[in-house]
Amino acid sequence: MITEYGEHIKILSESIKRLLRRNAVTNLKKIVNKTHMADLSMVFRNLSLPNQIRLFDMIDDVEQQGILFSELDDYMLIDLIQAMNLDDVVTILESMARDDAADVIGKLPSDQSSIILDKMQKGSEEVEGLLKYDNETAGGIMVPDFIALKEDVTAKEAISSLQKEHVDVEMPFYLYVVDDQGRLTGVCSLRQLVVAAQEKQLKDFMFTDVVYVRTDMDQEEVAKIVARYDILAVPVVDDSNRLVGIVTVDDVIDIIRREATEDILKMAGAGEEFIETKSVMKSTRIRLPWLFASCLGGIFAFFIINGFEQSLKEFTFLAAFIPVIMGMGGNIGTQSSTIVVRGLATGNINTKEILAVVFKEFSVGFILGAVYGSLLGVVAHFSYSKIMLGVSVGLAVISSMSVAALVGSLAPMLFAKARIDPAVATGPFVTTAIDIISVFFYFKISTTLMGL
Amino acid sequence: MITEYGEHIKILSESIKRLLRRNAVTNLKKIVNKTHMADLSMVFRNLSLPNQIRLFDMIDDVEQQGILFSELDDYMLIDLIQAMNLDDVVTILESMARDDAADVIGKLPSDQSSIILDKMQKGSEEVEGLLKYDNETAGGIMVPDFIALKEDVTAKEAISSLQKEHVDVEMPFYLYVVDDQGRLTGVCSLRQLVVAAQEKQLKDFMFTDVVYVRTDMDQEEVAKIVARYDILAVPVVDDSNRLVGIVTVDDVIDIIRREATEDILKMAGAGEEFIETKSVMKSTRIRLPWLFASCLGGIFAFFIINGFEQSLKEFTFLAAFIPVIMGMGGNIGTQSSTIVVRGLATGNINTKEILAVVFKEFSVGFILGAVYGSLLGVVAHFSYSKIMLGVSVGLAVISSMSVAALVGSLAPMLFAKARIDPAVATGPFVTTAIDIISVFFYFKISTTLMGL
Repeated sequence: MITEYGEHIKILSESIKRLLRRNAVTNLKKIVNKTHMADLSMVFRNLSLPNQIRLFDMIDDVEQQGILFSELDDYMLIDLIQAMNLDDVVTILESMARDDAADVIGKLPSDQSSIILDKMQKGSEEVEGLLKYDNETAGGIMVPDFIALKEDVTAKEAISSLQKEHVDVEMPFYLYVVDDQGRLTGVCSLRQLVVAAQEKQLKDFMFTDVVYVRTDMDQEEVAKIVARYDILAVPVVDDSNRLVGIVTVDDVIDIIRREATEDILKMAGAGEEFIETKSVMKSTRIRLPWLFASCLGGIFAFFIINGFEQSLKEFTFLAAFIPVIMGMGGNIGTQSSTIVVRGLATGNINTKEILAVVFKEFSVGFILGAVYGSLLGVVAHFSYSKIMLGVSVGLAVISSMSVAALVGSLAPMLFAKARIDPAVATGPFVTTAIDIISVFFYFKISTTLMGL
Repeated sequence: MITEYGEHIKILSESIKRLLRRNAVTNLKKIVNKTHMADLSMVFRNLSLPNQIRLFDMIDDVEQQGILFSELDDYMLIDLIQAMNLDDVVTILESMARDDAADVIGKLPSDQSSIILDKMQKGSEEVEGLLKYDNETAGGIMVPDFIALKEDVTAKEAISSLQKEHVDVEMPFYLYVVDDQGRLTGVCSLRQLVVAAQEKQLKDFMFTDVVYVRTDMDQEEVAKIVARYDILAVPVVDDSNRLVGIVTVDDVIDIIRREATEDILKMAGAGEEFIETKSVMKSTRIRLPWLFASCLGGIFAFFIINGFEQSLKEFTFLAAFIPVIMGMGGNIGTQSSTIVVRGLATGNINTKEILAVVFKEFSVGFILGAVYGSLLGVVAHFSYSKIMLGVSVGLAVISSMSVAALVGSLAPMLFAKARIDPAVATGPFVTTAIDIISVFFYFKISTTLMGL
């Protein structure tokens, strides 16, 4: 069925486009209704809004339309909903899992979302309950549907309750056990339930050392816990330890992917931009401020070099080494900061290790500086037969590379300690600082050594 | 139980260290045997090898020792095993899930791994079977334990088979249905089994449109499929469609995290280095080659500037703008290449869209170049009251930034098309190319315009 995923989507996409051109409604309906909504959402990326609406209306099952809502990229979802009849939107939202409906409504402009909540006959209270949690916390990503039973229920009763109720529960593989106040006391897996003697009570075989999280825990922290303990879902409790929802592993996967992508882009100063925006103006606006930081740094470097104008007049060739000294410093600084930022994100480094980490990076920078400093010093010496030029270039490379590794590792550690996202702050700060420092060291060292 | 994960590990770590210093064996044994092995592996990071061995020997349950093997970072695992009695290692490996045992053995030097395989009395064949698959494919990451039943088995029979056999299966929530040749024909969830009428045969209610993968599919592709379809495990089949294993969602999470980390580090030219190596020499060795690329680029830029020495002698101030022009080009180039590399990795961009993506990036580069080019041109003009210098700097920024965005997006697309990992190749290639191009354009434009 699956050869290669990209190939599969490409073929699907092309058949649908062809049928749209031919207006082959019967065939389109057939395809649309047997395609997985996850796949259809990928096809939507290549379609115009009018064609998206045409296809969307061909989906017979309102629940499938709801799944497609959840799968679409934000900007496509919002455009599609704006173009739809509001009553249809409400009907679809009512059919969706409460957490998914809350996610969709949370993305809409607030005037529109309150109209929708007013119109909803079913589930609007639960959705509003979910909307009050911060989007990026356990409360914001949890599903409020779960199976909770009392301690004295028997395995047999539990199984028969599964047959009658809890039919829509998203993760039916764990049963949570709660006391009379709804406080979490244990968990047992569907597997244990099936294997246990049927007259036994849940409290006799449930697992009591439950890993759980609070509603206000950051989603990244929740993801780390689910990943670390290899569990399929983690229960979420409120301040009084009452079970209010669960976070399932499929949502955790999405969080891990999204957070990794965001970190990568933030470090490059591309903010939360992603190619799917496809809008040139939007991309431009997102990148503008970050480039401003490096522009200011460049102007600063300009003034530094300007201050050495007399020396430059005498020894013009000094200018020719500016790129290599900046480049070497910049590159090792990026290596150090990337390792630290990613280490902090994955939990491989914590902010307590600041001295050890920075010292290690500084050592690496110094050794690599010595290697490349010698190499470039020899190149400089042979190009101009000036031993002092060779020594200056060598020392400039060593100092620029060691300072770059130091700044590159220290900055994200300090940002993290100050609770500033190191991925955002590190990029512009480190590159700009290193540019300035490298140029300054180079001219200071060379003019001193060459007696200018 | 969990307040904040980092805090929890820190406290645990400190108590263990204190007890180790006091040699409080009874207390240590108590702690070690009630701690989750995932947590203990984090504590191991802060301990010397002798202390690691002391703690390891205190673990009573050989299965727990096996879990700890799986949780340890590679370099710690290898050191620990080298220091252990080989027979003990074999006993532990025999108790482990086959795929985990294969992972551990696969990390050892080949002479040691063949001795271990010879000594293993239990499971060595299955482990060898797993070792023959490439580590980074579905075959390499699958678990060979799963529940497979025939189509004519009834729900009742299936449940009673769960009670007798399949006790060690890792993901007991899906039952796979196979024909007489062991070929996959369907799947049903434990939930369906419990809810179904007990005399019904599996073929009556199983789901036949199964998402599956082949043993040779790349692990990143497998991870994308599990993530996209929100499934807890995906079945793996061989060339004859026989079910040979399953890939579970917890392994998928690890893959997604690891791949993201690797991509981030590769783009920064830090290879697969991670801070946990803690070895200065190792880090130095990993980073050396990448810096060599940028060193060569720098030497190239040196020769270019050298070629313009006469012009520089006359107008020394030209040198002062080198940093800002290189910096602006380098930064927007990094933004473009990061967006494309990450887009390719997450499937948001595919290599067919090459023209659209590159054109978009070029446009963004051009617009931002115009903005910052004007700004820097004005700065240059006012600093030296030379209109042509202002125009030169402005044009140099525009051309450097548009070319950088073009190269930054085009290079990873071409690398991906040529099946070269864009994350590895892009970093050194793009930064080096941009440095050279920026410097060349700048001097060419300014010397032409200023009539040098």
